[in-house]
Amino acid sequence: MSQSSPGPKRDDPRPLALAHDEGAELAEERLSGEAIYDGVLLKIHRDEVVCADGHKAVREYTLHPGAAAIMPMFEDGTLLMERQWRYPLNRSFLEFPAGKLETGEDVLGSARRELREETGYEATEWAYLGSMHPVISYSTEVIHLLAARGLVKGPAALEAGECLTLERISQDDFFTMVRDGSITDSKTLSFAFWLNEMAYKGWTPNWQSS
Amino acid sequence: MSQSSPGPKRDDPRPLALAHDEGAELAEERLSGEAIYDGVLLKIHRDEVVCADGHKAVREYTLHPGAAAIMPMFEDGTLLMERQWRYPLNRSFLEFPAGKLETGEDVLGSARRELREETGYEATEWAYLGSMHPVISYSTEVIHLLAARGLVKGPAALEAGECLTLERISQDDFFTMVRDGSITDSKTLSFAFWLNEMAYKGWTPNWQSS
Repeated sequence: MSQSSPGPKRDDPRPLALAHDEGAELAEERLSGEAIYDGVLLKIHRDEVVCADGHKAVREYTLHPGAAAIMPMFEDGTLLMERQWRYPLNRSFLEFPAGKLETGEDVLGSARRELREETGYEATEWAYLGSMHPVISYSTEVIHLLAARGLVKGPAALEAGECLTLERISQDDFFTMVRDGSITDSKTLSFAFWLNEMAYKGWTPNWQSS
Repeated sequence: MSQSSPGPKRDDPRPLALAHDEGAELAEERLSGEAIYDGVLLKIHRDEVVCADGHKAVREYTLHPGAAAIMPMFEDGTLLMERQWRYPLNRSFLEFPAGKLETGEDVLGSARRELREETGYEATEWAYLGSMHPVISYSTEVIHLLAARGLVKGPAALEAGECLTLERISQDDFFTMVRDGSITDSKTLSFAFWLNEMAYKGWTPNWQSS
């Protein structure tokens, strides 16, 4: 068989299984599946499965290419945030910049592009903090969390229909707004952990020039 | 008009707008909308909107009734967690107990039920910590975050097809697993903020007996 042969096409659109999964005895087996809706953003699948206890069940989920979220930090410690309208919840949210990975784009490339397009800023140093899964019950989405510093302002390049305002927030105000419920977006909340590590536990991210 | 008249049925299935929204100038106006898919879990809608910059766009999202998540804390400070198979991501996750609000159920009622059904534990004291929105770009879901203590073990009552294992984790191990990427579920990560407030910043939740 030639090296260019990809073998039979995999029918299952979900991520590949982990080589070692601590919960392998809980695994659900896929019996069949179909694409239900192929929209602009949502790619809905409906699968029939057998659960670990032998019961059959239906699992519905959306396929997502993954995303990168960025915590941009100025030299004085303040944070660059955005306010955006989030239509499903019929309100605006204060959040860190983020966006979907585009085809062929790596995480850092996506983060640089999103930061530049949404805020106009370029960063001279980047650190990968970790990842999070916003909604493990009905999406394949993973969000990569990066910090950016060495911020230099250029022109933003918002896409049509992408409207937002920028806000510069002190770390104290950030924590206050998490406490009082003014910040509730999950990707933005995830950064609170890493900011605590830096601000209160003496941890330094692995900053890399780029 | 009699008091029992509810007025015209609201066509828009999303949450009502906030009385005072700091980002009101960013609002997107709904032009039309339709239900695309009414599944077991997912209730997909597709709306056409006008953005604040005048561009038209399509917004797709799922309607969600909201959920409650519980951080159960033993007297020695250890935390009760679950490992569950999460089919969309084809792997298991270590997470705190959680579940959807059922019709007519309040947040505390839902939290008590989910904790009992999934783990068998009842709690004598509860504290409301805050809320989070897991996926503001394509779901109306809000997750209410509660802490529970005074844990008393009874029998679990898992639903058919609901398979999980329980794990008792020290707070140090919890933070270590967030740091090393073993915990990435967004609702579970959200509790890291509140646990930091308790463990390192001397904050005490508003515990209430129930």
